[in-house]
Amino acid sequence: MNKYSDYLDYCKKIHDINMSIAVLNWDLETKMPKNGHKFRAQQISTLRKISHELSTNKSYGDLLNKLKNNNALDFDQLRNIDVSLKKYNKTLKYDANFIEKESNLISEAFVKWRLAKEKNDFSIFEKSLEQLIQLRIKECEILGYKNHPYDALLDQYEPDLTTHEVDKIFKEIKDFLIPFIKKISNAKEIDDSFFYQHYNQKKQWDFGIDLLKGMDYDFNSGRQDLSAHPFSTHFSNEDARVTTRIDENNLSEMIWSCVHEGGHALYEQGLLSKNYGLPLGESISLGIHESQSRLWENNVGRSMEYWKYNYNKLKKYFEKQLINVSVNDFYKACNKVKPSLIRTNADELTYHLHILIRYEIEKGLIESSIKVQDLPKIWNKKYQEYLGITVPSDSMGVLQDIHWSHGSFGYFPTYTIGSLYAAQFFTQALYENEKLYDEISTGNNNNLLKWLREKIHKHGKKYSAQDLCLKVTGEKLNFNFFKKYAINKYTSMYDL
Amino acid sequence: MNKYSDYLDYCKKIHDINMSIAVLNWDLETKMPKNGHKFRAQQISTLRKISHELSTNKSYGDLLNKLKNNNALDFDQLRNIDVSLKKYNKTLKYDANFIEKESNLISEAFVKWRLAKEKNDFSIFEKSLEQLIQLRIKECEILGYKNHPYDALLDQYEPDLTTHEVDKIFKEIKDFLIPFIKKISNAKEIDDSFFYQHYNQKKQWDFGIDLLKGMDYDFNSGRQDLSAHPFSTHFSNEDARVTTRIDENNLSEMIWSCVHEGGHALYEQGLLSKNYGLPLGESISLGIHESQSRLWENNVGRSMEYWKYNYNKLKKYFEKQLINVSVNDFYKACNKVKPSLIRTNADELTYHLHILIRYEIEKGLIESSIKVQDLPKIWNKKYQEYLGITVPSDSMGVLQDIHWSHGSFGYFPTYTIGSLYAAQFFTQALYENEKLYDEISTGNNNNLLKWLREKIHKHGKKYSAQDLCLKVTGEKLNFNFFKKYAINKYTSMYDL
Repeated sequence: MNKYSDYLDYCKKIHDINMSIAVLNWDLETKMPKNGHKFRAQQISTLRKISHELSTNKSYGDLLNKLKNNNALDFDQLRNIDVSLKKYNKTLKYDANFIEKESNLISEAFVKWRLAKEKNDFSIFEKSLEQLIQLRIKECEILGYKNHPYDALLDQYEPDLTTHEVDKIFKEIKDFLIPFIKKISNAKEIDDSFFYQHYNQKKQWDFGIDLLKGMDYDFNSGRQDLSAHPFSTHFSNEDARVTTRIDENNLSEMIWSCVHEGGHALYEQGLLSKNYGLPLGESISLGIHESQSRLWENNVGRSMEYWKYNYNKLKKYFEKQLINVSVNDFYKACNKVKPSLIRTNADELTYHLHILIRYEIEKGLIESSIKVQDLPKIWNKKYQEYLGITVPSDSMGVLQDIHWSHGSFGYFPTYTIGSLYAAQFFTQALYENEKLYDEISTGNNNNLLKWLREKIHKHGKKYSAQDLCLKVTGEKLNFNFFKKYAINKYTSMYDL
Repeated sequence: MNKYSDYLDYCKKIHDINMSIAVLNWDLETKMPKNGHKFRAQQISTLRKISHELSTNKSYGDLLNKLKNNNALDFDQLRNIDVSLKKYNKTLKYDANFIEKESNLISEAFVKWRLAKEKNDFSIFEKSLEQLIQLRIKECEILGYKNHPYDALLDQYEPDLTTHEVDKIFKEIKDFLIPFIKKISNAKEIDDSFFYQHYNQKKQWDFGIDLLKGMDYDFNSGRQDLSAHPFSTHFSNEDARVTTRIDENNLSEMIWSCVHEGGHALYEQGLLSKNYGLPLGESISLGIHESQSRLWENNVGRSMEYWKYNYNKLKKYFEKQLINVSVNDFYKACNKVKPSLIRTNADELTYHLHILIRYEIEKGLIESSIKVQDLPKIWNKKYQEYLGITVPSDSMGVLQDIHWSHGSFGYFPTYTIGSLYAAQFFTQALYENEKLYDEISTGNNNNLLKWLREKIHKHGKKYSAQDLCLKVTGEKLNFNFFKKYAINKYTSMYDL
């Protein structure tokens, strides 16, 4: 290997294997018969090992190091090399021992977490979690960091973002959201009870497909299926899929999962075929990915304009259930703010307090200022303090989420970062197209999608998240866009 | 690598990759959105190359050669090594040039075949087919053979079977079937017109699932989906899937594809988990595989006993369509013999004359006694001579099948071999369980499946096809079982 074309071939080969793993996982989550698990796990593990071997091959590293100083390459080519080399150097830091230990700890932790949650007994999970955190602390040392060990974890999900910056953002969130939500809690409660009538599964499914089509999600390059937990995945920009879950006694779950996962998939469909397998053909970061799902879910999907168009369609499916519900009632119910226990069901404001709590705890665990044994106590205290909620059991509190048992630390903040980017991008889109809301209210989302493709999707990893944000909106990530959006929307809705 | 356990690990690794390719192909045929083709082809090609590289690795070959003389290994272990070594030595014979040339020729031939069929113009396909045949002739030389070059091709699908033996079998088929079918053609024609009414797709689907459940096909270790061409595939014995196709104006297509593919899948489900990835965990040959699908399709599924039980269920789905059709009428229609143009729709007797024609032509092409340019003429002449059919166009004649454009030669005879094995196995099963037909007529197929599992499925490649047949039935493949079965069944049905 000594030419840029060798790099292209090699990089695409690794990508082909990773995308094959994604197909195996998609099948596992959506179609695989019950007994398929054991050998499927083995097949995925084998492909992962091959991918890892190729990714850490010395002659690949030599090639990257040689090419990074090649003046004959253009900006895009050098950026590909640059991102690949960063990834290569990072992957090299993990030895086989670490990978094996991690894999064993996670397997064990998952079993323990599930049991602990079932029995409502945190102590069952405690030791496993402690070991996982020690492993992550060790990982921070392996990877290296400038100021805070948590930087090293963050960088895996949101490259270049620092704990210092996240601290600043969550300080702003705290200062604004806690009193704002308190104010809303004191206002008249919105009635959303009509969401919880019986809604036929097949009709819900059909309406969800309508919503995806309305977003210009391309069913020739994607599909939707059912799965236990909604997700989006992709095997190329020409095959980017979504899944949803349907609860016959709760209409909202299907709606928001369709629009949310649809937003993720539109990003993948908007990447360029010619960059398949290369950094320029990949999304930038989890935060930017989440910005695309949140933009469609919240800024578009929870807007009055969106339902001006879609509510009549919905009413045709569920005439009986919605007969006495006006579009304004519906819009309000979509945006009802109410502190609750479970993150995944939270509204778009209280959601960030859930993330805040997790972020503060994760940081404390990684810097060893919080002890695992104190977690339930700390969790419950923060829920009381930030959300005014009394946690009735650890199962519904500190044990509710699967993430920590999977060993995922540093991931949660990207959920919030994504929402902030979403508000900032959407503000810019409105600024550049004064008819945008009019278009949305007639079911025409095409100009919005074109804008997202042109400004964000097509670039892949050409720019860092922060540089892209600067390029698109004229400034770096700024909490004020979200704040302004929230004040505008909720002040009038709740007559604050 | 120097131990048997190294062999196990290595062999399973290759198998994991091959099974991953199978998942990618299943998805491609059943779920993949239209635009997914380009990158999916690339992903499959990458995994294939990796699998090929591993399969031809020199140190793997050295290990196999070392282990084949290891006295510490037991019969099963030595058989695994033996089969793996045979495969290894065969794979080694293909150099990269051959593989690339083959792949290019097949891609081109497929396009040309499709166009030729569409335009009803054989000359469009002629040159590509000629090149493919020259390649296969070269392949026969590469692989080596004892008596006839076609032996080398046969061996890839039906190991150890020789052209000499196939000649003998088809001579018997010719001598028996041609006059027998002529006799049937002169008898009173059976009315099967009720098959071609309108049958609702969803109800057909549900009945097909009932049939699979009735065969004890395990839906916890498999599933059924729709695809353009029905097939079965597997990713382990615990995930063996089938597909079907439903024509709303032809009930029979769905029924026979469900039962046929179900039979294939039962074989895969009956292999042993502990042998996953090893020769002992794989089916013996295409002929034995086909024997399992044919046994269920013809010997069970086209029996009076089978419909004694299932016809009442079917009538509940399609009361209106079947109101005037007795179970005896239905049974007869399922077994209607009538020479026709298209192999895939043929009945269980004329089917073998289609195969006979292809076999004679393939052999002639490989030994260069038939020229490609003469194919349409020869094809039509044989259809007239053996089936009494005048072929109206090359599209419905020599161009009807995709196989040759895929470069598959040596494959067709296994279809017939499979039916003969099926008749022989089923005769033995009846002999060993005198209540078998009674059981089938009450919907109980469990003892039959147990017998097949015990006698055939669980062994994998432990024995060669012929040795297994000898072990199970006391003699080698013998055409008389099929002949007797056919005479018994059709003499009374047609009052011959």
